[in-house]
Amino acid sequence: MARTEISTLGEFGLISKLTKDIKPTQPSTKYTVGDDCAVMDFGSKKVLMTTDLLLEGIHFNLEYVPLKHLGYKAAVVNFSDIYAMNGTPTQITVSLGISRRFSVEDIEALYSGIRLACEHYNVDIVGGDTSASMTGLTISITCLGVAAAKDIVYRNGAKLNDLICVSGNLGTAYMGLQLLERERQVAQSDDKTQLAFEGKEYLLQRQLKPEARKDIIEALRKAGVKPTAMMDISDGLSSELMHICSQSKVGCCIYEDKLPIDFQAAALAEEMNLNIVTCALNGGEDYELLFTCSLDDYEKLIPIEDLYIIGHITKPEYGLNLIGRNGEEITLKAQGWQAFNGQ
Amino acid sequence: MARTEISTLGEFGLISKLTKDIKPTQPSTKYTVGDDCAVMDFGSKKVLMTTDLLLEGIHFNLEYVPLKHLGYKAAVVNFSDIYAMNGTPTQITVSLGISRRFSVEDIEALYSGIRLACEHYNVDIVGGDTSASMTGLTISITCLGVAAAKDIVYRNGAKLNDLICVSGNLGTAYMGLQLLERERQVAQSDDKTQLAFEGKEYLLQRQLKPEARKDIIEALRKAGVKPTAMMDISDGLSSELMHICSQSKVGCCIYEDKLPIDFQAAALAEEMNLNIVTCALNGGEDYELLFTCSLDDYEKLIPIEDLYIIGHITKPEYGLNLIGRNGEEITLKAQGWQAFNGQ
Repeated sequence: MARTEISTLGEFGLISKLTKDIKPTQPSTKYTVGDDCAVMDFGSKKVLMTTDLLLEGIHFNLEYVPLKHLGYKAAVVNFSDIYAMNGTPTQITVSLGISRRFSVEDIEALYSGIRLACEHYNVDIVGGDTSASMTGLTISITCLGVAAAKDIVYRNGAKLNDLICVSGNLGTAYMGLQLLERERQVAQSDDKTQLAFEGKEYLLQRQLKPEARKDIIEALRKAGVKPTAMMDISDGLSSELMHICSQSKVGCCIYEDKLPIDFQAAALAEEMNLNIVTCALNGGEDYELLFTCSLDDYEKLIPIEDLYIIGHITKPEYGLNLIGRNGEEITLKAQGWQAFNGQ
Repeated sequence: MARTEISTLGEFGLISKLTKDIKPTQPSTKYTVGDDCAVMDFGSKKVLMTTDLLLEGIHFNLEYVPLKHLGYKAAVVNFSDIYAMNGTPTQITVSLGISRRFSVEDIEALYSGIRLACEHYNVDIVGGDTSASMTGLTISITCLGVAAAKDIVYRNGAKLNDLICVSGNLGTAYMGLQLLERERQVAQSDDKTQLAFEGKEYLLQRQLKPEARKDIIEALRKAGVKPTAMMDISDGLSSELMHICSQSKVGCCIYEDKLPIDFQAAALAEEMNLNIVTCALNGGEDYELLFTCSLDDYEKLIPIEDLYIIGHITKPEYGLNLIGRNGEEITLKAQGWQAFNGQ
């Protein structure tokens, strides 16, 4: 029998191969694979559903991630998917695979982080599964949320001339990861100089304890702005823009000098000889919101804090482009986090 | 810091420690940890939610489980949890962690089994997550289902004198596993006599391709019987009876000669020098239904095929007892499948 390596398809290729002929048969199924969440209709409100699998050695390294932070993050990344559809997260289930290396206290620490996130975002833990594992820690969380049908925002609604907006700043979680990795290597080397986290706490926080942008969703609602397309930035801006543009059948143009970059992140990138714009475009795990909205909403967007207009939607034949600081046009490529390439 | 080994608590102890102070805050959350599913109210019908995590080396051994069967079973065990609340499964999400050992064809085989189960039970695949893994295969499936509020059956409703019923037969999946394990050892040894599956296909089927008892749920509904308490038998009859009795605050009495035992399973147990009653009480993965119902429903139960009355509910002070073939009374102990004891 033929053997095709999964790395030749990548995650998205594999998913699309596996799910290509699936046709929903349940009347309650409204939207399936291809967005941040699935959408179901069980009555007056729509139900959103998303799930995330985190595996030790792939998604986290316990050498520098405290278990409580890991739990918090594992929950928050699911909430972020629900907000990215303009919904409100309501319930999660938590499944854990636990090897003998972990004690009850370890798992309590992990769970306390999950619970803290749930308290913070007002989400209920309603079930789960706990099992021994041969090999490290596995965390699988599934989240339900609710939204009125008219409020749900998919990835496929971006229209010509729409504004492209992002919240927060980009590449910061990636720089936090670089910092942790560098300090881990210092700590392991013979030359143990002082661990240099001082002044860089924000980078660590963005990597270790990200938040979902509930505040932005609320601010948009208050301002009367409904995005035309939206998703959260988990794999990097370039990759997410490609999803929105391909699903909406449009092109886009974003501006390098409009990309929101954190000062600490830029300073560390300089120090580590990295290009911060590349990090902002391709670094993952920011969990900021990327959305498009009508030009007519421009005035309403301006007063919203921590929100940045970075470009606009173009005709599909224009493709995906970044306008550099000197006016040069660069075609965007998704180099986002690819688990199957062994990064 | 103290280190408590997880094996000292076991799975149920760990779950109850982790979840003991959790208080739902969402109005849509109706029931959380402690039954086959969580229950949510999003409108006219109630939504059930269950999740299962399967890890290579713990829950399955790919030396004798074909990937397609594994996919089928991984889906069906979730459907079984929804039926066990008297609901109808409607949607699943599928998360896979995949190591480099697996090819695209392997994962397609696994997924084809999941899809076959979904087609068979009329359930939609609505999303999921796919990731590389350092270490073997991880399958996490979450299932939603629906039920009218008045139809949902919990574990805590068994009443004094209620009949105790089970579907199908017990211990058969366990004997299927023993058979597979024996043949694996034969195949690895120098003395390669013929693999002896002939005449034992049913045992293999029960282990490799179990079905959820949708037919029993439908038959009960048609007969106008609503169980007072119900769950599916995944960890063994003794263990599940303990859940129903402790949550319903009752005792029970079951009869050895009423336990439904498959002939092939009994013959293999004899051959392998195992006690088939012990296997029926403590062998896991049968995915049959265990339920209690009112004595008044006795006449309605009799015509239902493949359904067996094995005992009745008693006062709590009586405890959990098995009446042996010679009238002796044996106290039931849950020796069900305990993942954290390294079995």
